[in-house]
Amino acid sequence: MTGRLIGVGVGPGDPELVTLKALRTLREADVVGYFAKAGNPSHARGIVAAHLRAGTEELPLHYPMTTEQPKTAACYRAALAAFYDAAAAAVARHLDAGRTVAIIAEGDPLFYGSYMHLHVRLAAKYRCEIVAGVTGMSGCWSTAGAPIAQGDDVFAVLPATLAAHELERRLADCDAAVVMKLGRHLPKVRRALERSGRLARAIYVERGTMQNAAMMRLAEKKDDEAPYFAVVLVPGWSSPGEAR
Amino acid sequence: MTGRLIGVGVGPGDPELVTLKALRTLREADVVGYFAKAGNPSHARGIVAAHLRAGTEELPLHYPMTTEQPKTAACYRAALAAFYDAAAAAVARHLDAGRTVAIIAEGDPLFYGSYMHLHVRLAAKYRCEIVAGVTGMSGCWSTAGAPIAQGDDVFAVLPATLAAHELERRLADCDAAVVMKLGRHLPKVRRALERSGRLARAIYVERGTMQNAAMMRLAEKKDDEAPYFAVVLVPGWSSPGEAR
Repeated sequence: MTGRLIGVGVGPGDPELVTLKALRTLREADVVGYFAKAGNPSHARGIVAAHLRAGTEELPLHYPMTTEQPKTAACYRAALAAFYDAAAAAVARHLDAGRTVAIIAEGDPLFYGSYMHLHVRLAAKYRCEIVAGVTGMSGCWSTAGAPIAQGDDVFAVLPATLAAHELERRLADCDAAVVMKLGRHLPKVRRALERSGRLARAIYVERGTMQNAAMMRLAEKKDDEAPYFAVVLVPGWSSPGEAR
Repeated sequence: MTGRLIGVGVGPGDPELVTLKALRTLREADVVGYFAKAGNPSHARGIVAAHLRAGTEELPLHYPMTTEQPKTAACYRAALAAFYDAAAAAVARHLDAGRTVAIIAEGDPLFYGSYMHLHVRLAAKYRCEIVAGVTGMSGCWSTAGAPIAQGDDVFAVLPATLAAHELERRLADCDAAVVMKLGRHLPKVRRALERSGRLARAIYVERGTMQNAAMMRLAEKKDDEAPYFAVVLVPGWSSPGEAR
């Protein structure tokens, strides 16, 4: 009997936004694993630290390098793929020994999460389950109190890494959007919002639901400094008259 | 002192996918409100029924008609707007009396949720807070075990009510998608997926995370019957080699 792999979403950051199912899964797991930058604590582990059972084995999976480097470099991509292969092998050793392994992930495990790199490597061979979580972007629009999409809205998630003209085209082609992974791309995102007529309603959010969360209208943000995980929300509506 | 309005997400259906914060909010609320079709129990209330305090005042908000009618009819839109106005007024009476009112919502309150119709009517006058929830679509891709989007994927949420050519164009123009509100639109959605080359990886899901959840490859679904809340997932990737 091999063990079970469980991808567990722990939500956007507020430790209270963890689900009952995530907590039960952590209590029942033999091993709790998580990704983290080398030399840094895991954000996901921090969210549920108060709930980890004493004696639970932990399996930290440390990235070999920053994930903020340009992803186009072939050597970077190859190194990252090798890292995920090795991480999956480390998890598989526990599964082969019959253990239940919970991999905790910020937000939702199958929505832009590192857990997916384990899932696609292991799901064909082992029993895998998912505990859905509150996404980081839900945390951001909750913090902003911004209704994001309703009715027949077309909603888009756009990475800030897109080319300027692609960002502009796609922002003009949807009712509501989230632009994510801002970092150094904020000046480009700002111009794309302006050209697509969306700057006036754009909202900038850092660390949604966390104690040090910050939000403001992007048009009122004086500088173009943004951490990698900051987002811009473009709500589809804001008043009853805009209901579709 | 007026009271507080709190939009509380209770997740996609599995009662264990409720957050600690949602449960605390329900315990502390004076009034718990919810939308429901006339003559039907509220799905949101059903999810948290085991956690409602005895003696908590309940405020059911019953839709005057089905929300599945064509939304283009002016008289339908006017009647619905009047209903939301009346519902907001009913909530406001409690807020004016200093009570804390929690409106529970399936999924996430600000993502395609009816709560938003109260929020846009009341947020300017009263203190409003949001408790983010696990969305219905996270529930669906978790049930399917389908990694939906990663890396620099462009992700789109498309209502099945879109015209056939618009569905086809938008499906071809994104890396990953969810088509929602299927109902009678499934034949059109199926054709749009086929024409955009996406049918092979499309997954049909009903009642994600619920005990009677159902899922299958859409290409293997023999009929075109689908409830209103069924979705089609179009994952952006499924194997390590597709990582971007």
